[in-house]
Amino acid sequence: MRFLVLGGDGYLGWPTALYLSRRGHDVGVVDNFVRRQYDFEMGVDSLVPIEHLQHRIRTWEEVSGHRIEAFVGDLTDAEFVERTLRRFEPDAVVHFAEQRSAPYSMIDRQHAVYTQYNNVVGTLNLLYAIAELDPTIHLVKLGTMGEYGTPNIDIEEGFIEITHKGRTDVLPFPKQPGSFYHLSKVHDSHNIQFACRIWGLRATDLNQGIVYGQETDETTMHRGLATRFDYDGVFGTVLNRFCVQAVVGHPLTVYGRGGQTRGVLDIRDTLACIELALLNPADEGEFRVFNQFTEMYSVRQMADLVAEAYPGNVQIDTLEDPRVEKEEHYYRAAHTKLLDLGLVPHLLEPSTIRSLLAVVDRHRDRVDLEAIGPTVDWRRTSSALKTTAGLHAG
Amino acid sequence: MRFLVLGGDGYLGWPTALYLSRRGHDVGVVDNFVRRQYDFEMGVDSLVPIEHLQHRIRTWEEVSGHRIEAFVGDLTDAEFVERTLRRFEPDAVVHFAEQRSAPYSMIDRQHAVYTQYNNVVGTLNLLYAIAELDPTIHLVKLGTMGEYGTPNIDIEEGFIEITHKGRTDVLPFPKQPGSFYHLSKVHDSHNIQFACRIWGLRATDLNQGIVYGQETDETTMHRGLATRFDYDGVFGTVLNRFCVQAVVGHPLTVYGRGGQTRGVLDIRDTLACIELALLNPADEGEFRVFNQFTEMYSVRQMADLVAEAYPGNVQIDTLEDPRVEKEEHYYRAAHTKLLDLGLVPHLLEPSTIRSLLAVVDRHRDRVDLEAIGPTVDWRRTSSALKTTAGLHAG
Repeated sequence: MRFLVLGGDGYLGWPTALYLSRRGHDVGVVDNFVRRQYDFEMGVDSLVPIEHLQHRIRTWEEVSGHRIEAFVGDLTDAEFVERTLRRFEPDAVVHFAEQRSAPYSMIDRQHAVYTQYNNVVGTLNLLYAIAELDPTIHLVKLGTMGEYGTPNIDIEEGFIEITHKGRTDVLPFPKQPGSFYHLSKVHDSHNIQFACRIWGLRATDLNQGIVYGQETDETTMHRGLATRFDYDGVFGTVLNRFCVQAVVGHPLTVYGRGGQTRGVLDIRDTLACIELALLNPADEGEFRVFNQFTEMYSVRQMADLVAEAYPGNVQIDTLEDPRVEKEEHYYRAAHTKLLDLGLVPHLLEPSTIRSLLAVVDRHRDRVDLEAIGPTVDWRRTSSALKTTAGLHAG
Repeated sequence: MRFLVLGGDGYLGWPTALYLSRRGHDVGVVDNFVRRQYDFEMGVDSLVPIEHLQHRIRTWEEVSGHRIEAFVGDLTDAEFVERTLRRFEPDAVVHFAEQRSAPYSMIDRQHAVYTQYNNVVGTLNLLYAIAELDPTIHLVKLGTMGEYGTPNIDIEEGFIEITHKGRTDVLPFPKQPGSFYHLSKVHDSHNIQFACRIWGLRATDLNQGIVYGQETDETTMHRGLATRFDYDGVFGTVLNRFCVQAVVGHPLTVYGRGGQTRGVLDIRDTLACIELALLNPADEGEFRVFNQFTEMYSVRQMADLVAEAYPGNVQIDTLEDPRVEKEEHYYRAAHTKLLDLGLVPHLLEPSTIRSLLAVVDRHRDRVDLEAIGPTVDWRRTSSALKTTAGLHAG
C-alpha cells in the first residue's frame, strides 16, 4: 500500500516511515523541517545526532534497498498539500506534522497563535485536499491523551455513553486539555469528526500517550538512520529526560508532587499501532478514536524506575510545577482498541530503561545542562527561554 | 462602567453599544468593517439601509447626548488589540467580533480557514491582552447554541454532571457543532476556559440561539441608527428571512423536513442578556456558560408562525437541505441562568412577527430575490455563490 507520512523527518515520523517502508509499503514523507528550526530558536540539539533527511533517505536505500519519496513543504500551504496528494496518490496519510510541545505553545502569545494556526490550518487543508481528490484516503492523525485532561471518571476511547434525565446518547468524550498545544489537538479532533460526517471521510484519531525510547529495528540498522532524542525542558518527553539526567548526574526534575499520571508507550509500539490503524482502516464516514498507550505511570513512579535501573546514585528533585495541572488525581483510561487489533506491547521493564540509559551514555558529551530545566511558566503570558539568555524568542 | 463592544458595527454589536450607552455606561466600539466587506463579496445588502459607523456615532450623540468612542482595527492584529485595551481601559469586553455565518464558513476551503483563523486567533489575542494588561476585565463572549449540536439528551448550560462506572464529575458538555463556523466557536470556548483556569481570567460564554428582530428602543430613535437586517441565503437568520419571503411573495424556504429545532430570541433580549452578564460578572478564574435563548421552535413551526401572522397568502416550499444535519430530532436545552439573573423575555407573539413584517414592508423595494436561496452545499468542498454569477468567490 502507499502511505504518506506527514512530519516524516521528526522524532516519530522518521522511524514510522522506515518501519512501513521495510514492511514493503510504498512510503513518502512530507516535512518542512520546522522541528529543526525550533532547535535553532532555542539553541538546543537532539542528544543523538541526526542526518539531513536527504542523507537519511539515501542511507535507507543503501541499507534496505527501499526508496522513500520526499516532499518538502508546509501543510499551511494548501496548494502544496493538494499537489503532494495528487502526485503521491496515497492509500492513507499518517499525520505527525504538528507542533507537538506543550511548553513551546506556552512560551508567549506568538507561540500559542503559531501552534494553533499551524496545527489547525494544516489539518484543515489536509481534510479539504482529501475530500476533493479522493475521499477514500484514510487519515491516521496523531492526537494526544492530553486532550482528555484528568477527569474524575474513567476516560473512554473518544466517545462516552451518557444517560441523563432518562435519555441516553453516545457523545464525544468531554475534553479538558492543559495547554494551547493540547487545545490545538482538541480543535483538530472536532474538525476531523465533522469532515467525516459531512464528506464521508475515514479517519483514525490516535490519542497517543507519552512516548519513550529512541531505537527501533530500522533506525539501528545504520548510524545515519537515527531519530532525534530530546531531553530539553521544552521538547524533551519525561522518561527520556530522566534518563539523561541520571547519566549526567543531574537530579531528576519532578514537577510538583509528581502524582501527575499519564499513559506512556515505547517508541516501537507507536510504529506497531500506526501500522495496525493503517491495515484496519476506518469505514467510510467513520471518525474513530484509539487511545494509543500501553501503561499508566505517575511522573514520580517514572523517576523511581529510572533511579532503580541506573547503576549509580540518582537524586530526585522536586521543582515547583511550571504547569497548571492537578499534581494528584484519579486517572484510568481505556486502551483496548489497539490491543483488540493485535498490539503486543513492549512494557516498561528495567531492561528497557537500561537500553535507554545506554543510548544516552554514548552521547553524554553532547548534553547541555542548561537546556534541561523547565523554562516556560504556564502562569505567565510570556516566558524567557533560559537557553537563549540574552536572546529574545519570537 | 466602561464597556468595549468588539464588532460594534454589526447586527447585534451596534444595538448593544447603543443600549449600554443609553443606560449610562461609557461605551467604546471596535470594528474592522469586514462584515460590510462580506456584502461586497456576495453582492448583497442589508435590507434596512445602514449608515457608516462614524455617522451612526455622530447621530447617537445628537439624539442622546452620549458619546461612543470608536477603534478601527482587526483583532488578529495583536498590537491593535493591546493598544485598544490599554487606551480604553474597559471593565468588561463584549466580544461579537467574529465571522458568524455557518454557510459563509462552508463556501470553500479558503472561507473555512478564514473563519477559524479570524475567530480563534482574534480571541486568543484578546485573551492574552486581557491577561497581560488587566486580568480583572470580564470577557463576555458570544458563542452559539450550535456548539452543542442536537444530542439525544437534554442540553445543559456548558457543563454536565456525568456518573460513569461508579464515579462522578462535572465536565464540559460534549460538543457536536455543525459547520466550520460553529466549530470555531467550540475552539474558542475551549481556549477561553483554559485561559480562565491558568491565568484566573473571568469569562462568560453566551451560547446564543438564533436572533430575530431588527428594532430596539435605541435604534428606532433615529433612522440613522438602524442596524442591519440580513435575509440572504448566507447571512440571513431564518425568521428574518421568512418575513422577507412572505412580504415579497416568495415561498418560505424550509430546508428538508423542517424538524430542525433551535433556541431563538428577540434582538431586545440579546441586549438585556448582555447587560445582565455585564452587571453580574463571572468570578476570578471562572468560565461560565449561559444558554442565551428564550424559546425553542422548529424551522417548520417558524414558517407556520409567519404564514399565520402575514395577512396575505404565503406558500411554504421544501428545499433539499443544503446542510448536513438531523431534520427531525430530540431537542431540549436548559436556559435558566439568565432568567435567574432577572431576564424577562419578549416571546415570539404574532404581534412581534407583524412588527417585523412592517419593517420589511417599508424596505420591500430593496429585496433582491436572487439573494434568498441557499447557495452553499455542506456536501461539497466548494460552492459557487449564485449572487456572484460570473464572479468567483475568494
